[in-house]
Amino acid sequence: MSVYQATASAPVNIACIKYWGKRDTKLILPTNSSLSVTLDQDHLRSTTTSRADASFKKDRLWLNDTEEEIKEGGRLATCISEMKRLRREVEEKDASQPKLSSYYVHICSRNNFPTAAGLASSASGFAALVASLAALYKLPASPSELSLIARQGSGSACRSLFGGFVAWQMGSLPDGSDSLAVEVAPQSHWPDIHALICVVSDDKKGTSSTSGMQRTVETSTLLQHRIAHVVPARMEAISAAIQARDFDAFARITMQDSNQFHAVALDTDPPIFYMNDVSRAIIALIVEYNRVSVANGGKLKAAYTYDAGPNAVIYAPKENIKEIVELIVKYFPQPEAFKDPFGLFGAAGVGEGKLVDGFNPAVAKPFGVGAVKNLIHTRVGDGPRVLRAEEALLGTDGLPKAA
Amino acid sequence: MSVYQATASAPVNIACIKYWGKRDTKLILPTNSSLSVTLDQDHLRSTTTSRADASFKKDRLWLNDTEEEIKEGGRLATCISEMKRLRREVEEKDASQPKLSSYYVHICSRNNFPTAAGLASSASGFAALVASLAALYKLPASPSELSLIARQGSGSACRSLFGGFVAWQMGSLPDGSDSLAVEVAPQSHWPDIHALICVVSDDKKGTSSTSGMQRTVETSTLLQHRIAHVVPARMEAISAAIQARDFDAFARITMQDSNQFHAVALDTDPPIFYMNDVSRAIIALIVEYNRVSVANGGKLKAAYTYDAGPNAVIYAPKENIKEIVELIVKYFPQPEAFKDPFGLFGAAGVGEGKLVDGFNPAVAKPFGVGAVKNLIHTRVGDGPRVLRAEEALLGTDGLPKAA
Repeated sequence: MSVYQATASAPVNIACIKYWGKRDTKLILPTNSSLSVTLDQDHLRSTTTSRADASFKKDRLWLNDTEEEIKEGGRLATCISEMKRLRREVEEKDASQPKLSSYYVHICSRNNFPTAAGLASSASGFAALVASLAALYKLPASPSELSLIARQGSGSACRSLFGGFVAWQMGSLPDGSDSLAVEVAPQSHWPDIHALICVVSDDKKGTSSTSGMQRTVETSTLLQHRIAHVVPARMEAISAAIQARDFDAFARITMQDSNQFHAVALDTDPPIFYMNDVSRAIIALIVEYNRVSVANGGKLKAAYTYDAGPNAVIYAPKENIKEIVELIVKYFPQPEAFKDPFGLFGAAGVGEGKLVDGFNPAVAKPFGVGAVKNLIHTRVGDGPRVLRAEEALLGTDGLPKAA
Repeated sequence: MSVYQATASAPVNIACIKYWGKRDTKLILPTNSSLSVTLDQDHLRSTTTSRADASFKKDRLWLNDTEEEIKEGGRLATCISEMKRLRREVEEKDASQPKLSSYYVHICSRNNFPTAAGLASSASGFAALVASLAALYKLPASPSELSLIARQGSGSACRSLFGGFVAWQMGSLPDGSDSLAVEVAPQSHWPDIHALICVVSDDKKGTSSTSGMQRTVETSTLLQHRIAHVVPARMEAISAAIQARDFDAFARITMQDSNQFHAVALDTDPPIFYMNDVSRAIIALIVEYNRVSVANGGKLKAAYTYDAGPNAVIYAPKENIKEIVELIVKYFPQPEAFKDPFGLFGAAGVGEGKLVDGFNPAVAKPFGVGAVKNLIHTRVGDGPRVLRAEEALLGTDGLPKAA
């Protein structure tokens, strides 16, 4: 008897032009287009195995070894039934295909980064779910077509169906069939873009992005201006910057749009804050680092961006990452040694950090150990990968293997 | 020989609709109208004595016992010469008047609140300067006419020429002659509006409002929308709320406009932050305090507002101030006993504070002693006062008396 099973991994993405606001909360249609960089799965990824079997009694899903309820009409159920619908189309065209669409599925998913890292795992998670089911079902669908389904799991998940630089085009159709992800440029176009994630400790329980963004849609008097007038121009400008590998323009727009996303969150009633004093201090450091470069006749060397939480993601050309790590470590002593996946520092390690010449140390005060809990160095990466059978997360019994 | 000397005091004002941005930096003409509450001079005031004498060799000014340079073409020089111009008009109409406009002046000014309190003293300071010179020169000018001159010292100073609730109408004329303060309602219309100022400790040197607001004008893509579409409607709505003594509407608009001012500061490139984690925690407390009231069928009971710094000003009807002090003290233990100018607490004092029934204590974490350095309880107050000769700050020699 055949085993119908496939395993795929999918990457995290971090937006440069931010998604904030839905025009349709059920279909997850956004109020504006957005654009992100896909991060390397060698460092951060979700891995998912999906299996269809006539013996299964219901659809089941395990996330990080805990079984999750698949609520009827919920986002998970929608994604699974949409994937089964695409499989049914394959079966209807080719009667020789096994009727997998009529079988229940078991799905097992794991993230290789701790939840405590505060990184949104829903994007990589739903992308890996969709990618593994597409492999299981041998769908002819393109990444853009699959992105339509991942979008209904978690909006930003649609952007994790591609590597490189990815736009989520907001679309205009009421059924959402034109609200999908497209590749702006592949990883290979600009592989030099690296990212340093500063995982920031936070005492405060934040507002969830799902409820927060709708409160902004309902109460911010500035959001509509952003949607209608600011984002369209920025989407064009940053796409052009990516095509031209113009880091200066890319960085400027990325920082401006991060700021504006947090500005409309603050313009919400009651206001929403995601950044804290540590986040603000990291911004001050990057602003000063860029100021020194520009004062010396150079260009912007780094760009910060913040999602719905206090963590900073710093984009920079690879050649600047060493200086940036030294800068961050100087103000934010690390509880553990910097994991140095690209071998920037050699055996001696980072040490106590240092500042570039001309840097004004008074732009921020040094914090205590652990204010920035962890630094993750990664880079632009590729799209979802179909993995070999040996990497499956489900055992021969169709249940999760021990982690 | 006659002594020509007058002393006046002027109040602090705290805006509900914020002034942020100049369309003319020399004349200090704003990009939008604003509206403030004048605070009681019994608690916070600037006091200024001005004297004109034929024997003086130049215009001189002492601020808090330190002599300040009066720079040619600077704001101080502009205010003094404008006041002399008005005096000259009086002298030209009535030849019997002494020619005070041709004498140099000595001016001595003191604030009764420490600079360390982080309260902007330029508004009360320039208002007191103008009020004392108006008294010295026996000008027939109305407060609105004097506000045109105070405005050229410091924009928000124009609003300290009136008590109660005051609008600064932005005007449209290039010479600024219609950019002046008007009374929306006097103190006596709604004397029940009290204010609790939370003086917040800050490690960070903030961006000055003068340079910050122009960076916002130059770089924020949201500011123009605020100016053209948001503020005009809010000015009308809050004026109506004041006329109707509708605290619920007054509070809602005040908080929304504070948030939006900080939102456009954050939308600036590089971004400007004035609030810190303590400021954010106070917002969370007031939001929760209001939520409990509304959940019980009541209305908003307090409104926070933040100027270009981390200090909170909380407006509330007098009857709510006791609960608010108890709330703030619960999360922000005070280094010194609460000065209780209205006798809310009796001999036992505030104690360790407490929460109203139904308040969710998890909305903020408690801070250490001194995160909020000081609490100042005051209320809506009157406009500038001309004081008696005994209260003069200049001695018979025309130099500052010992403090």
